[in-house]
Amino acid sequence: MRAAVVTNTEFRIEDLPTPTPGPGQVLINVSRCGICGSDLHARTHADEMAELAAATGYDRFMRSDQSVVLGHEFSGEIVDYGPGCRKRWRTGTPVVALPIVRHDGQPNLTGLSTAAPGAYAEQVVVQESMTMPVPNGLSAEHAALTEPMAVAWHAVRMGRVGKGQIAFVIGCGPIGLAVISMLKAAGVRTVVASDFSPRRRELATTCGADIVVDPAAESPWDAAPKRGRINGVTDILSLGFDTMERLRRVPNLPWWYVFRLAHTLGAGPAGPVIFECVGVPGIIDQILTAAPPRSRIVVVGVCMEPDRFHPAMAINKELELRFALGYDPGEFRDALHLLADGKVNPAPLITGTVGLDGIENAFTALGSPEQHAKILIDPTSPAITP
Amino acid sequence: MRAAVVTNTEFRIEDLPTPTPGPGQVLINVSRCGICGSDLHARTHADEMAELAAATGYDRFMRSDQSVVLGHEFSGEIVDYGPGCRKRWRTGTPVVALPIVRHDGQPNLTGLSTAAPGAYAEQVVVQESMTMPVPNGLSAEHAALTEPMAVAWHAVRMGRVGKGQIAFVIGCGPIGLAVISMLKAAGVRTVVASDFSPRRRELATTCGADIVVDPAAESPWDAAPKRGRINGVTDILSLGFDTMERLRRVPNLPWWYVFRLAHTLGAGPAGPVIFECVGVPGIIDQILTAAPPRSRIVVVGVCMEPDRFHPAMAINKELELRFALGYDPGEFRDALHLLADGKVNPAPLITGTVGLDGIENAFTALGSPEQHAKILIDPTSPAITP
Repeated sequence: MRAAVVTNTEFRIEDLPTPTPGPGQVLINVSRCGICGSDLHARTHADEMAELAAATGYDRFMRSDQSVVLGHEFSGEIVDYGPGCRKRWRTGTPVVALPIVRHDGQPNLTGLSTAAPGAYAEQVVVQESMTMPVPNGLSAEHAALTEPMAVAWHAVRMGRVGKGQIAFVIGCGPIGLAVISMLKAAGVRTVVASDFSPRRRELATTCGADIVVDPAAESPWDAAPKRGRINGVTDILSLGFDTMERLRRVPNLPWWYVFRLAHTLGAGPAGPVIFECVGVPGIIDQILTAAPPRSRIVVVGVCMEPDRFHPAMAINKELELRFALGYDPGEFRDALHLLADGKVNPAPLITGTVGLDGIENAFTALGSPEQHAKILIDPTSPAITP
Repeated sequence: MRAAVVTNTEFRIEDLPTPTPGPGQVLINVSRCGICGSDLHARTHADEMAELAAATGYDRFMRSDQSVVLGHEFSGEIVDYGPGCRKRWRTGTPVVALPIVRHDGQPNLTGLSTAAPGAYAEQVVVQESMTMPVPNGLSAEHAALTEPMAVAWHAVRMGRVGKGQIAFVIGCGPIGLAVISMLKAAGVRTVVASDFSPRRRELATTCGADIVVDPAAESPWDAAPKRGRINGVTDILSLGFDTMERLRRVPNLPWWYVFRLAHTLGAGPAGPVIFECVGVPGIIDQILTAAPPRSRIVVVGVCMEPDRFHPAMAINKELELRFALGYDPGEFRDALHLLADGKVNPAPLITGTVGLDGIENAFTALGSPEQHAKILIDPTSPAITP
């Protein structure tokens, strides 16, 4: 089979032997595979990523001098089963799968490890237990977006955004756009999106953002509705105060009951939920400084460098930082069904398609936010420009 | 009345006029007032704290060149009521109060603003709506610990620690010790405490910590029980994997149901809850680096300087940082009642008492962790050494 192999940052198209599915594994023909920001990063900074993965307990992440087939956001069709499979689906059934396979009892990240070649290829091996059929005739293009959509869905779930709460999405790259789509699918009424790029702001609107701002011209916090908002520490103090003063005046209310009520009332409302989808040094501190009190910040952008921040600022506003990674199998399935049921439309994200020979060009094109969001690889396509 | 007034880091004992309680306010005789870490900081770094407070919406924080009466952790007795009070309690009734009063509709921080003189004095003004009687004959010494205990109780509630979860307390100063006491009062079975000081480790044991370590000799994570613990990213991947493989083998289990179950099962257990009670630059990054995956870190220590951290480390382990500040009125009442009901014992925290003339010595003594945890001020005492 043809596959794009990266070694020391260089892509080469090679003719590799057809992979053999192991026990509990399935061979699939790749229909489409998305190019992920992690792929761009892994191409040039594999060793740093491998160090970090090793430090957190995964020691089989790809190294720059290894020959690796990237690709972990894919859709495909069933070709063949390895031993011990339940063989639930007929040959040709369209499927998606979590990018994780197991060898010798150890899980490996598909497309980011030599132990589990990815889907920048005509075929890829997946785990039967992590595979699911594509329902409702969802197209292979859209099904390939299941993985990044699952990342966004996981982030939205971690954010626990109430429908009436304001959600901010800082950065409208592919993941920021996916988060906007998922927030709207979850019924969040006010989504404020922010990006320096006019093209990405346009895409944010298409994905359903209610208010879209250029942070060079206006702060997203100023653009958001003010009603019922806590603007500072004084507001928090006043809220506790007003509650207690109000309760104090209620005749015959026992004192202990006043303070029991104060638990819920005195704390005041929660702040907004902010999704950090930029992932460069300094952005977390910028958000901590500008965010309203009691904000929950879900960090989805991956900043690989050391970063600086002001803990006292976060303390004084009682902020919360939740760092998000990946998704669980249930969230992956949710994402697939939200796509298949038409609850989210990934079409605005897809800005181009190339064949295996176009990967180099696609990586270059993805460097500029004005051109592209998500580029898909179609291994059967001759296209060399996205 | 006699009061200790700080101006440009110098304490002076002054004879101030008896304060007049305004509308809805009460005058109380101070029985005891604790010296807080914030007081030590406000004495020498008031301007930095004022800048930060102003940046987060409170512009009436004390400045170094102002003359301020510190003291916000106090117990006292009812003396007199201002206009418009409900006068619930007789003169002489022992009370505690949240350190917040209102003037011209604006809330002010008692003991940290010229607008609201504190309790390093014979008398202090409090708000009736924020005042509560001391029950069960709780001593004035112990009642004065309500405020720091409320800070700890708020942090413990923010941590949402399950009784079976492991709680780590990093740093055993007064707030670390109060957090340990509150964790045990909440029924948390395994509390691991860590401090470089032998004296503070001793106090941690007295407060109920189950495992106490010297971080110079052993890491708290190594000292904690290993059972059921997630040690790295591979464990998280394996958990999701094992769940799906197990579910795959269940006969007649519909596929959609497998993935619904995977939401709860595939995500695996939560990590421990870690309370950061040190508040110096670098400690948050140390914790992010050493913490097990899926840990929740409650930041209670106040680091005023800019700090450095590695976001990618927090992302790869899906950590959560919750910055805690203060408490709500209900939590303040909870703390008072936990003390009065004997659910927490603040005695180990109290290591000395001085009169107003001993404040200077007490501040010096609190600089060394080997000597003291919490020093109380008794305005009627002649003691000049704690």
